Amino acid sequence: MAFADANELLCQIERIGVDAERGGYSRPVFSEPEMELRRWFMRHAERRGLELETDGNGIIWAWWDPAGLGRDGAIATGSHLDSVPGGGNFDGPLGVASALAAVDVLVGRGVKPARALAVAVFPEEEGSRFGIACLGSRLATGVSDPATVHGLTDARGITYDEAARGAGFDPSLIGPDPERLAALGAFVELHVEQGRGLIDLDRPVALAGGIIAHGRWHVRIDGRGDHAGATRMADRQDPVVVAARVIESLREQTLAIDEARGTVGRVQVTPGGTNVIASAVDLWLDVRHRGDAEVRTIVAGVTAAAVAAAEAEGCTVTVTEQSFSPTVDFDAELRDAMASALPGAPVLDTGAGHDAGVLSEVVPSGMLFVRNPSGASHTPAEHAEPADVAAGVVALADVLEHLLTR
Amino acid sequence: MAFADANELLCQIERIGVDAERGGYSRPVFSEPEMELRRWFMRHAERRGLELETDGNGIIWAWWDPAGLGRDGAIATGSHLDSVPGGGNFDGPLGVASALAAVDVLVGRGVKPARALAVAVFPEEEGSRFGIACLGSRLATGVSDPATVHGLTDARGITYDEAARGAGFDPSLIGPDPERLAALGAFVELHVEQGRGLIDLDRPVALAGGIIAHGRWHVRIDGRGDHAGATRMADRQDPVVVAARVIESLREQTLAIDEARGTVGRVQVTPGGTNVIASAVDLWLDVRHRGDAEVRTIVAGVTAAAVAAAEAEGCTVTVTEQSFSPTVDFDAELRDAMASALPGAPVLDTGAGHDAGVLSEVVPSGMLFVRNPSGASHTPAEHAEPADVAAGVVALADVLEHLLTR
Repeated sequence: MAFADANELLCQIERIGVDAERGGYSRPVFSEPEMELRRWFMRHAERRGLELETDGNGIIWAWWDPAGLGRDGAIATGSHLDSVPGGGNFDGPLGVASALAAVDVLVGRGVKPARALAVAVFPEEEGSRFGIACLGSRLATGVSDPATVHGLTDARGITYDEAARGAGFDPSLIGPDPERLAALGAFVELHVEQGRGLIDLDRPVALAGGIIAHGRWHVRIDGRGDHAGATRMADRQDPVVVAARVIESLREQTLAIDEARGTVGRVQVTPGGTNVIASAVDLWLDVRHRGDAEVRTIVAGVTAAAVAAAEAEGCTVTVTEQSFSPTVDFDAELRDAMASALPGAPVLDTGAGHDAGVLSEVVPSGMLFVRNPSGASHTPAEHAEPADVAAGVVALADVLEHLLTR
Repeated sequence: MAFADANELLCQIERIGVDAERGGYSRPVFSEPEMELRRWFMRHAERRGLELETDGNGIIWAWWDPAGLGRDGAIATGSHLDSVPGGGNFDGPLGVASALAAVDVLVGRGVKPARALAVAVFPEEEGSRFGIACLGSRLATGVSDPATVHGLTDARGITYDEAARGAGFDPSLIGPDPERLAALGAFVELHVEQGRGLIDLDRPVALAGGIIAHGRWHVRIDGRGDHAGATRMADRQDPVVVAARVIESLREQTLAIDEARGTVGRVQVTPGGTNVIASAVDLWLDVRHRGDAEVRTIVAGVTAAAVAAAEAEGCTVTVTEQSFSPTVDFDAELRDAMASALPGAPVLDTGAGHDAGVLSEVVPSGMLFVRNPSGASHTPAEHAEPADVAAGVVALADVLEHLLTR
């Protein structure tokens, strides 16, 4: 029996969660599109005879264990199905579809595994709904505190617990899951590349070296709402003016440090009327660098500029860390093992966070990147050519075969 | 029979359109709260025996014509019921409630009018839904083109026509209504003051001198969406950085001209993800000054700064005028007549636009302002003390009696 290959699988989900307003896809965790993608994954896992379970953190595990070896020392692969607002069809789903297709390759090769394989799907990898990226793996590893997560709210004020319950999950079950993770021998995540490294190298597939340090900070600026026409400039306490200064300061601080990255991509002005001086602005900083200290330096600089600008305008400002992930160097022994299955594959660092980075704290983890001819990410422009998708599946199968049989 | 006075009338609507998220009230045109306010108005007009009609532009007219004099040379009063997002309960409704209460005063005084009186309610005065302030009076006077208005969209992509139809109006009827307006002898709008003029003068009621020139410009900045972590700073085309420069430039240009006012109160970042470099930003400029030329100078300066910033970032920018209202000097003869009914009342200019300003092009128009002890506007902090509300009703009744009987 022939199952849908990775390109076909991706094609099947091309209409799920289309965002007519922003372009691309919006598939936030626990939304109808994300639930539809979960059902799609489970359907295809079942067709392949994989044994399904969804754990207390909402992570789906689909087990391939033809020899009944049990889960000790098992190898896991997979990625996520949620997206940023207006994202593409590859960031997340490529790793999931490639994992299913790699199982088919292993079966077709007649591989006799010495340990079981799990295909995993992680929720809220993007953090686009509740603000914390890799939330599923952070909960499982104990990096995120369930007490905090219960009360997280999305942009419409819906709590994590309400959203989870609405999607049929029991939020009282979230939290550390050390036994499940301790049983894993390795985790390998395949992901579409989010930069131009493989374009420049003219190669379809790379191994990950590490993930540069990154974090998110929420900046809240409170001013005083008033009428845009009737209020003299001298009488204003306008948080939008302070927000502009924060954005410019982040750019300045980031440019001052080589290879740093600083972004404001989300801004909310309250109440948001054209003829209304705003009463408050919420915005979020995304800051990354190879070195943890450089990230801290940038955020400290922006915070100081924000406080000064707020003081000058008669506003108040608070800067709150929502998440911080130190630089991750993936497990060297696992990477060597992966490299032995993919001789000559280049090794690239990435500026993007991944569940593999969070899991690397407790499970030897590694990643594969598949070439993205646009070099773009978190936009519908991201892409992987069918031939490169196929090459990624073979590379993943080669790595998994090596890990499962050694 | 005793009808609800203006303070009671305002109290009755204190729960309509409460905005739990922003605070205050959000009552956009054609929304359920605005429709509920229309029904409330019509109920109270009917109780007073006023004859109701709603014209093709959605303006409600409630006629008091006890002597059957017809509409030639009629006096109109009234205001609006829609609000800015997160506004107060007085901006608009105070003028409507005071007009109903003034009719009661005239009846109580046994006034024998020589011409009919209409209490009018104008839709979309704030322009908070479709972007054009005073839309009802602009359509009626022919300042706004129906062909353009049909296609205006709100923040959720709903067109003017769809919203109007959804609220039970026939949008094919919108457009100039010269006969109806030509029949009016005068229009007098009472409004809560939107500044501190009456506080400083220690007076409850003022006459309007004029409305300073004001306009709205839509700024659209297009960049290139990408990943916040994987994209080098040098490779970015980030429209948020350009938006920050536009906001700062507006502040600089406005401060350079004495008594000018410039505001950005509405900003939309697309797609709006924390870890996503935005692909586009929409923001709106609100610029005002006593002199038309000064407003033009500020907008030209901001436009030049926007173009330069966009060019430096590899973005594109377009600045589109959504509305411009030159300085309005209200009809001097009408103001003299109003002043003779309110001896010693101060005369104040206002920085806020009003339907009375739009109508003044074709109908002698004037305004009364009622003291606002907060000096604030377009925020729930706006207010009028019950005694001042009552003083405003008496002042309006005095003016109307004078105009109706002379």
